[in-house]
Amino acid sequence: MIRSLSLQNDKKIVLLVIDGLGGVPDPDSGRTELETAEKPNLDSLARKSVCGFSIPVLPGITPGSAPGHLSLFGYDPLSYVIGRGILEAVGIDMDVRQGDVAARGNFCTVNPGGLITDRRAGRIESQQAADLCKALDGQIIDGIEFIVRPVREHRFVVLMRSNETLSDEVKDTDPQQVGVAPLAAFVTSLRAERTARAVNQFITSATKILAGQKAANMILLRGFSSMPNIPTMQSIYQLQPASVASYPMYRGLARLVGMDVLSTGLTLADEIKTLEEAFASHDFFFLHVKGADSAGEDGDFQRKVRVIEEVDRYLPRILALKPDVLVIAGDHSTPAMLKGHSWHPVPLLLHAEYCRPDNTLSFSEASCLAGGLGTIPATSIMPLAMANAEKLGKYGA
Amino acid sequence: MIRSLSLQNDKKIVLLVIDGLGGVPDPDSGRTELETAEKPNLDSLARKSVCGFSIPVLPGITPGSAPGHLSLFGYDPLSYVIGRGILEAVGIDMDVRQGDVAARGNFCTVNPGGLITDRRAGRIESQQAADLCKALDGQIIDGIEFIVRPVREHRFVVLMRSNETLSDEVKDTDPQQVGVAPLAAFVTSLRAERTARAVNQFITSATKILAGQKAANMILLRGFSSMPNIPTMQSIYQLQPASVASYPMYRGLARLVGMDVLSTGLTLADEIKTLEEAFASHDFFFLHVKGADSAGEDGDFQRKVRVIEEVDRYLPRILALKPDVLVIAGDHSTPAMLKGHSWHPVPLLLHAEYCRPDNTLSFSEASCLAGGLGTIPATSIMPLAMANAEKLGKYGA
Repeated sequence: MIRSLSLQNDKKIVLLVIDGLGGVPDPDSGRTELETAEKPNLDSLARKSVCGFSIPVLPGITPGSAPGHLSLFGYDPLSYVIGRGILEAVGIDMDVRQGDVAARGNFCTVNPGGLITDRRAGRIESQQAADLCKALDGQIIDGIEFIVRPVREHRFVVLMRSNETLSDEVKDTDPQQVGVAPLAAFVTSLRAERTARAVNQFITSATKILAGQKAANMILLRGFSSMPNIPTMQSIYQLQPASVASYPMYRGLARLVGMDVLSTGLTLADEIKTLEEAFASHDFFFLHVKGADSAGEDGDFQRKVRVIEEVDRYLPRILALKPDVLVIAGDHSTPAMLKGHSWHPVPLLLHAEYCRPDNTLSFSEASCLAGGLGTIPATSIMPLAMANAEKLGKYGA
Repeated sequence: MIRSLSLQNDKKIVLLVIDGLGGVPDPDSGRTELETAEKPNLDSLARKSVCGFSIPVLPGITPGSAPGHLSLFGYDPLSYVIGRGILEAVGIDMDVRQGDVAARGNFCTVNPGGLITDRRAGRIESQQAADLCKALDGQIIDGIEFIVRPVREHRFVVLMRSNETLSDEVKDTDPQQVGVAPLAAFVTSLRAERTARAVNQFITSATKILAGQKAANMILLRGFSSMPNIPTMQSIYQLQPASVASYPMYRGLARLVGMDVLSTGLTLADEIKTLEEAFASHDFFFLHVKGADSAGEDGDFQRKVRVIEEVDRYLPRILALKPDVLVIAGDHSTPAMLKGHSWHPVPLLLHAEYCRPDNTLSFSEASCLAGGLGTIPATSIMPLAMANAEKLGKYGA
């Protein structure tokens, strides 16, 4: 429906995603990370905005990064599923295309009888793994190119590419236990015969190439998956979207939905500079702040507070660009108390000329409860941003 | 589900629809139209009621009048779509029936070569157009009656009626540009062959009838559509519903869902009198106030305020009838600031003996935020009204 209502105009939307934004209170202070942070700019903005909460997937569901972001971009995360292999590939910035099949790989060790002794090859060093990847990379088997790239430690990605679309209906070769032999790649559909045959030849070849290597002498593959058939944000919203994200996984997710991926540095200062430089050339910006999630994952309450305070200091630079719509959201909550992603609704702020401000006095979990947006599915954020940018026509006569 | 739970009793429901009710704040005063209006009766009622917001279609979606009202009557506006031709026909109070096909017509001008020179015939005067409609009206082609009625200026409605159900799967004959010839009526499904053939004959006949007319010498048709197959409110709710609406489009929408359309005058005073006179004979009343929407569309903040104040003055007359359930709602927001319909949630009030009043101190956008109903889809209003009238049985054992 959104597709049929979308209109083009020159208004600009900024979606600032503070990864893992939501928290739960520190039992001593009774305040969450967001409630603890000194953030005069965010609080002042909240008083002129409409606030609320977003639910990334469904109440009680803790999302991974992919469903959390797809939902923010307006895609139903239950309909558009990104396989493990694809996510790993886009997460290291590989150029994944329709028809490719990707798998996650582990370097492992097997004994002379071929039985697995360590599924992670003692968490082999990244540099060693990178060298082994080079040795495996670039083989062409039955017209299928095998592109092999290291991730970290024992983990790598195998991307298969052919002139014809490949099927990903192949089972894991990783038996998820030691003392047994790696599995052959079995198909779950006859469509995948060509893929599975080539995978098995690739594994045989890898066995020969790795023979005698001390660090790791075998590979395990899992999570075979194809690119989901996701319509682009251009086609749905008639936007020219761009991403400003330091971390490769988020660039990868942005690329999946058709965003121009702007190159930027590692710090928030770099990202803000990139946003400023590119502001004229696009009408939608996904600006990603990773630090809050990382701090939350580490259980570091105070570091998460400091990341939020850093965002607050840069907020005037964003506002100085005068975006017509500014949304501040998170892909999920990452409470430091829980040291991981969580299911808690995520604070949400929308600022625009006609946003109908509510009585929210600050940007925090406690005050968002009284916000005018209420608690909405995260997939509603894009329609609301589009509406506030007057980029959506009327439904029905 | 509602259908299977509905019960009859003698309790009465009044649904007062203030068209375009919701607003956004005037930037100077910080107050919306509803927050600006002096409305002691509405505020006093809010203190004894449960309040909240309704979302007509989906967050961010700006509805037209038809989806906005269908939703208030409890029909999913995404499932029940009213075509342009049908809406135009019901909007001028035509008696449209199942199996009919309606189209919107334009009188236009073509040059001697048959190419369109003006798609609107210089916005021909209404009286002239009415005379031309009379000349085209009443033809019977292949057993299909062509009923032609003027709307305003160059616009008219063609309603086709036959003993058999007609298909509306016919494309527009309006090419939406000048310098080209009008299109023939092409089918989008073979089912519509009979309709399309008759439409083409009707156009040929119209060409002859209009030949030599100075004001307009050709017609363009678009929005071919059939009556949606909507179950009546009687069959769903076991109600005897009536509408009190001055404007033809809303009478038409009421008729579409099976309401008795009560004849009334143009003012709110007339409508209240009609409600009082008919109060004994029905158990559900849709009372429509158009002025707020018109004022909002015109960008006239103060006039919208005055319309709300007028409603407030008549409220005691409605309360004096002692309806068991009184709902005050809007089909959508029409903020004067936006000069048009908008996506903003619409203030909602429900008064009934057991409505569980909340802490709302007045009827306004700001106070409805704390309302006990929360923000609900407008399609939930009818079930809530039915429940509060004790007209809904228990679901499950």
